[in-house]
Amino acid sequence: MKVLVTGGAGFIGTNLCNELRSRGHKVIACDLYNTERDDFIRCDVRNYRQLEKVFDEYGPFDYVYHLAAEYGRWNGEAYYENLWQTNIIGTKHIVRLQEKYKFRMIFFSSAEVYGDYEGEMKEAVMQENSIKDTYQMNDYAISKWAGELMCMNSAKMFGTETVRVRPVNCYGPHEEYTPYRGFIPKFIYHALFDKPYIVYKGHKRIIDFVEDTCRTFANITENFFCGDVYNIGGKVEWEKDIKEYSDIILKAVGRDDSIITYKESEGNTTKIKTIDFSKSIKDLKHDPKIDPEEGIKRTVKWFKWFYRIEK
Amino acid sequence: MKVLVTGGAGFIGTNLCNELRSRGHKVIACDLYNTERDDFIRCDVRNYRQLEKVFDEYGPFDYVYHLAAEYGRWNGEAYYENLWQTNIIGTKHIVRLQEKYKFRMIFFSSAEVYGDYEGEMKEAVMQENSIKDTYQMNDYAISKWAGELMCMNSAKMFGTETVRVRPVNCYGPHEEYTPYRGFIPKFIYHALFDKPYIVYKGHKRIIDFVEDTCRTFANITENFFCGDVYNIGGKVEWEKDIKEYSDIILKAVGRDDSIITYKESEGNTTKIKTIDFSKSIKDLKHDPKIDPEEGIKRTVKWFKWFYRIEK
Repeated sequence: MKVLVTGGAGFIGTNLCNELRSRGHKVIACDLYNTERDDFIRCDVRNYRQLEKVFDEYGPFDYVYHLAAEYGRWNGEAYYENLWQTNIIGTKHIVRLQEKYKFRMIFFSSAEVYGDYEGEMKEAVMQENSIKDTYQMNDYAISKWAGELMCMNSAKMFGTETVRVRPVNCYGPHEEYTPYRGFIPKFIYHALFDKPYIVYKGHKRIIDFVEDTCRTFANITENFFCGDVYNIGGKVEWEKDIKEYSDIILKAVGRDDSIITYKESEGNTTKIKTIDFSKSIKDLKHDPKIDPEEGIKRTVKWFKWFYRIEK
Repeated sequence: MKVLVTGGAGFIGTNLCNELRSRGHKVIACDLYNTERDDFIRCDVRNYRQLEKVFDEYGPFDYVYHLAAEYGRWNGEAYYENLWQTNIIGTKHIVRLQEKYKFRMIFFSSAEVYGDYEGEMKEAVMQENSIKDTYQMNDYAISKWAGELMCMNSAKMFGTETVRVRPVNCYGPHEEYTPYRGFIPKFIYHALFDKPYIVYKGHKRIIDFVEDTCRTFANITENFFCGDVYNIGGKVEWEKDIKEYSDIILKAVGRDDSIITYKESEGNTTKIKTIDFSKSIKDLKHDPKIDPEEGIKRTVKWFKWFYRIEK
């Protein structure tokens, strides 16, 4: 199969290209900047002309994994111009190209679309539940839900074929640290560089090692249920308190917790998020294998390599 | 009161400025292009710097009516880059300025947020109903719902004060014809210029004369229920078939129906939209006075003046 991965030089994109190539697919990656990589072309999805050039020069594609996006709640609030241009105008460009070229798309949404929903997050919540249950609470979340609606509308009007995925707390190698990243890369980076960080007690999370997640993403080419949508994340039995993740990270880094300030959980965010992954397990053969201890060990190893730390 | 009207040179904006000024408010209008009007400044809401300049030079404002938007389903699909930049990035700029300057905002949404909902459109539908009942069916609708969510999120996080309004089939003077406008200006323009048009039978609509709608918008300064949202449209007893509106227009223009092709209603869009306006009648003293016959007569008169037709 010939596959395009937008955002292909990013965290998930890099891992996904590796997985798809290991299966013998012909993969073209595009992303914001020039790189040294093979089968890569610079393309800012905000610009239709640049995207069209990718299709002219490398198409046609059987599948397009559309990952290119501004990521994260606070990043989206701070850089909302970029967020909307990339996540929405960029996605609409892709949808228009899909209407023209008829490739199958995998659209990357987010579990943020469930907003502050307190029940078990099943995919059907975004159909059956009351609208106010899942009011999206930030521009990042709104942009991802808007993107899902765009894909659904195009399917209805033009018969385009898209599967939507909602990854949950994916972590691992190739996720470079910035202050807008999640708690795993944040804790690892801070622990490695002896920088203080805060751990709020009483927050439980399920994390998913990126190579596990990407195997499932790659499976979609063989299990493409047109119009469907999937939560994709770690095993329910791997659920841990954020304090436990911090402990695992300290152990993997090999240091004590003197840089950490422990705080009681913040008033409004104590809720435990429960997410149902049974649909992706059934349809997409989702089968996470790397548990948090092993995944964090590998991630720390990658961080040491990437940031040139010899310990 | 000191009031800013974004999109103040547009159809509703022009009428709203007239109404607000007639009540003694100090009104500044801004819009995309330079004009000859007084108390007007050119400002493209897509550009934060231009907006900030309006506040620096003319602020502080007690109220901001945020009307600046790309309007209409097919316009939004054809010019989606402009749609998202104006309707969303522009709105976020306004929200950020609101967080800074603390003015009260009236955000202009649309009844399009109800999507394809088949029941009676009460405001509470967008809280209580199932999400799938109101999937927004086009980018214009999605952008308006996203804008509402942005206003709600800012209210929660920063205590900003906003009222949202969802106008329904507003028509009248100062609505220049383009192919992306609604059926009233379309029929009038075509009837006046002897151009053929199609009338689909069996579609019922309620229309609202813009001066009536704008009186209600202006009332919000005296009846500001923070965080609330209102459908605003004509009287339920004025509901008519689109064919009847066409007949009224032909009569007002003074011509026969030889330019019209009548067709049976299209498969999927026969539904009669029922909208509840009782909340704006109660809270905002919404009280439409100009019935469709009179309103269309006045609108035809304005069209003849604007397009320099002597008949």
